[in-house]
Amino acid sequence: MDSEQLREYGHRMVDFIADYYKTIETFPVLSQVQPGYLHNLLPDSAPDHPETLEQVLDDVKTKIFPGVTHWQSPSFFAYYPSNSSVAGFLGEMLSAGLGIVGFSWISSPAATELEMIVLDWFAKLLNLPDQFLSKGNGGGVIQGTASEAILVVLIAARDNVLRSVGKKALEKLVVYFSDQTHSALQKACQITGIHPENCRVLKTDSSTNYALLPELLEEAVSKDLEAGLIPFFVCANVGTTSSAAVDPLAALGKIAKSNEMWFHVDAAYAGSACICPEYRQYIDGVETADSFNLNAHKWFLTNFDCSLLWVKDQDSLTQALSTNPEFLRNKASQANLVVDYKDWQVPLGRRFRSLKLWMVLRLYGAETLKSYIRNHIKLAKDFEQLVSQDPNFEVITPRIFSLVCFRIVPTDNDENKCNNRNRELLEAVNSSGKLFISHTALSGKIILRCAIGAPLTEEKHVKEAWKVIQEAASYLIHK
Amino acid sequence: MDSEQLREYGHRMVDFIADYYKTIETFPVLSQVQPGYLHNLLPDSAPDHPETLEQVLDDVKTKIFPGVTHWQSPSFFAYYPSNSSVAGFLGEMLSAGLGIVGFSWISSPAATELEMIVLDWFAKLLNLPDQFLSKGNGGGVIQGTASEAILVVLIAARDNVLRSVGKKALEKLVVYFSDQTHSALQKACQITGIHPENCRVLKTDSSTNYALLPELLEEAVSKDLEAGLIPFFVCANVGTTSSAAVDPLAALGKIAKSNEMWFHVDAAYAGSACICPEYRQYIDGVETADSFNLNAHKWFLTNFDCSLLWVKDQDSLTQALSTNPEFLRNKASQANLVVDYKDWQVPLGRRFRSLKLWMVLRLYGAETLKSYIRNHIKLAKDFEQLVSQDPNFEVITPRIFSLVCFRIVPTDNDENKCNNRNRELLEAVNSSGKLFISHTALSGKIILRCAIGAPLTEEKHVKEAWKVIQEAASYLIHK
Repeated sequence: MDSEQLREYGHRMVDFIADYYKTIETFPVLSQVQPGYLHNLLPDSAPDHPETLEQVLDDVKTKIFPGVTHWQSPSFFAYYPSNSSVAGFLGEMLSAGLGIVGFSWISSPAATELEMIVLDWFAKLLNLPDQFLSKGNGGGVIQGTASEAILVVLIAARDNVLRSVGKKALEKLVVYFSDQTHSALQKACQITGIHPENCRVLKTDSSTNYALLPELLEEAVSKDLEAGLIPFFVCANVGTTSSAAVDPLAALGKIAKSNEMWFHVDAAYAGSACICPEYRQYIDGVETADSFNLNAHKWFLTNFDCSLLWVKDQDSLTQALSTNPEFLRNKASQANLVVDYKDWQVPLGRRFRSLKLWMVLRLYGAETLKSYIRNHIKLAKDFEQLVSQDPNFEVITPRIFSLVCFRIVPTDNDENKCNNRNRELLEAVNSSGKLFISHTALSGKIILRCAIGAPLTEEKHVKEAWKVIQEAASYLIHK
Repeated sequence: MDSEQLREYGHRMVDFIADYYKTIETFPVLSQVQPGYLHNLLPDSAPDHPETLEQVLDDVKTKIFPGVTHWQSPSFFAYYPSNSSVAGFLGEMLSAGLGIVGFSWISSPAATELEMIVLDWFAKLLNLPDQFLSKGNGGGVIQGTASEAILVVLIAARDNVLRSVGKKALEKLVVYFSDQTHSALQKACQITGIHPENCRVLKTDSSTNYALLPELLEEAVSKDLEAGLIPFFVCANVGTTSSAAVDPLAALGKIAKSNEMWFHVDAAYAGSACICPEYRQYIDGVETADSFNLNAHKWFLTNFDCSLLWVKDQDSLTQALSTNPEFLRNKASQANLVVDYKDWQVPLGRRFRSLKLWMVLRLYGAETLKSYIRNHIKLAKDFEQLVSQDPNFEVITPRIFSLVCFRIVPTDNDENKCNNRNRELLEAVNSSGKLFISHTALSGKIILRCAIGAPLTEEKHVKEAWKVIQEAASYLIHK
């Protein structure tokens, strides 16, 4: 780690990355390589002797780039975005440059304290209830992903219950969530030993735009209580992965509370929009939640990974996840004067991730960030309008945020044929390399998803995307 | 994400970080701030409007730096090192610059394929058995931390057993490990619902230098089998956290195999040394293991996080951790042509972490990396010699790698007084800001740990550290 070599090579890498962004529109958005392509391009073993940075960067260009799916391309509309920005990138650089590991307060006090402060800032932008702030028994923490966020709160909730009813009751614990909930929750149940038959996957349909009906939750809980089971965890969504559906938080939270269940709100994608007053309504009812999660790496210009989790009761987390080996003991921790984030998460080690979120908030400011969100939503509105003006297409479920769900309409009422046609369209569009959209299924229908949220996306990219989709559809319909 | 702003700001950040390294020796190694120090220095809420990079970098210098414990300082000897290097830093930059999320092969084929290739390279450097290579049913994967590595293999092993004996048998599953094993395993047991009374923490002592006696394992397993329990998981260590003890892999592995248990080897710290032929012996017996873990971010110049996990049977992992929601389905995955690393780990999303390991291997080459390891071990030998020449001190447990465990010797056979004196010495040394060492406990004795492994550490830093320790000890002894 020679400072002058770092300076020289660092500058070259900055130019390399800046040049990448300058030319990003020249690459196929979805990588077009075949499985195993790289194996034939790289040697079988590591070199014995140093190679030059030039050789490595040449290989990045000629061998790695063809296998990259360009998430930062302005024509990336698949899944949900994974935002990157100059501020987020600088934060990652600084974090990598300092190279600290912030498991306990003492291992780098600034890492813990900046994280607490920045999560408080964000909670205030969202107008979260005070109980989620760090001044009491609540607070925020940066997890790697929403999967880890939901895992740690599930463990906290599980252990809360098992402490009072005994650990043999594990097989009686029941989890409730809609069939639109991210697969991360089922994975978390699997990891934590919740019995699969105790996962109540509650059905949704188009009548509620795929939001969970509180009556269904109430019914399922009653039935389980009668059967001697222990309902203990409800997850609600603000912006589901398939269609950005929003569950009715207040009503669900009320049921959760009256049954002493942990209530988690997964707003991984759409939570960012709720810093705009006009979208805050979608998390109304969050005051009934025990935990709330939002991925700043999705739609808040903060480079992956940066998943924000707030809890009202940090003791539940730390009771479930603390370890206290001798080699980590220190005065500040023993005296209970500080937060040790190792006890809020699965891993021990952790990067200085709050730096990037802090830099995003400071270098852009809240007002700019609101405009950024609103611009994407406006672009999505435009796209929605383009779709609805074309009789070959239909918009599926009303758009709320920046995701448009749509498909080619069925002909002759043949849903199977329609599904195949939409699959073909997806394939045709994505193999063009001109844009990348993804798909989902809603009530058995194959749906195409256009999620607008790449930082570089402008009106022209959305229009061009629609043109490519329309032309490909026209070819499929008339062939 | 404007490419010219990225260029301008990126260059400024490179200079900022290079300047940090240039002056790194001027900072107290262990941060000397008091709990809550940052709260008074930063505003209560995020700014509404953009601030300048200059303002932010000024704050980093004046407000963040005092709260940083400088892990990359040449006088950082605490815990185990968390290596950073120019190559590792460049890899982090490039990964942040590309901003991809590599959960499935299709989401960026190069991310998955480079990871497979680089982990194969590393396996060959370690001379791991072919079953750990990706060409068969084995392969390597980059986890964030050793905690996550041990968690995923524990889940895989648990579910392997429960699939055949039924999930109600969870309460019968027994895990075996020495009392020197990292707390991450107990945490993983807690997460996965293994009953705490079924964690067999097998005692070690100075007679084996804190290595696990195979006889103890054999005895414990027999007793549990007689009691109708199900032994299913053994963890062995190569380089424990307290004293870098090495368990006898071959003997432990044999017992594990003959009882059809999963055998995991945790070589988080010391595994890197095993690329040197003269240290390879410490993982002899790894051929009996089901999984093997090494943290490239500890002692292999690869910036945190980069924990390498190899398994022989990837199906065990994917059966336990797969999810297959419609929105992630794609031809390559459905046709089983590719690896989807999302099914080898807890989170869904993942960064392009193989880039940094690839750059470390290429920009330095295997021979340089071996010299790097050997140099740290030589410096540790020097330190060990300095300690053993001073009658006020003793070396505790023979040094194998680059960790020296030592303490002030007891006077009047008073172990309590001796423990307190060593605690005082730790406090005195660390509050000087001139170096940072940490401690542990072995057989009730407080032990000081000097772990050499920061990339910038040279002979003079080790000598200076010893001088500070000696002077502080002398003051304590004679006061």
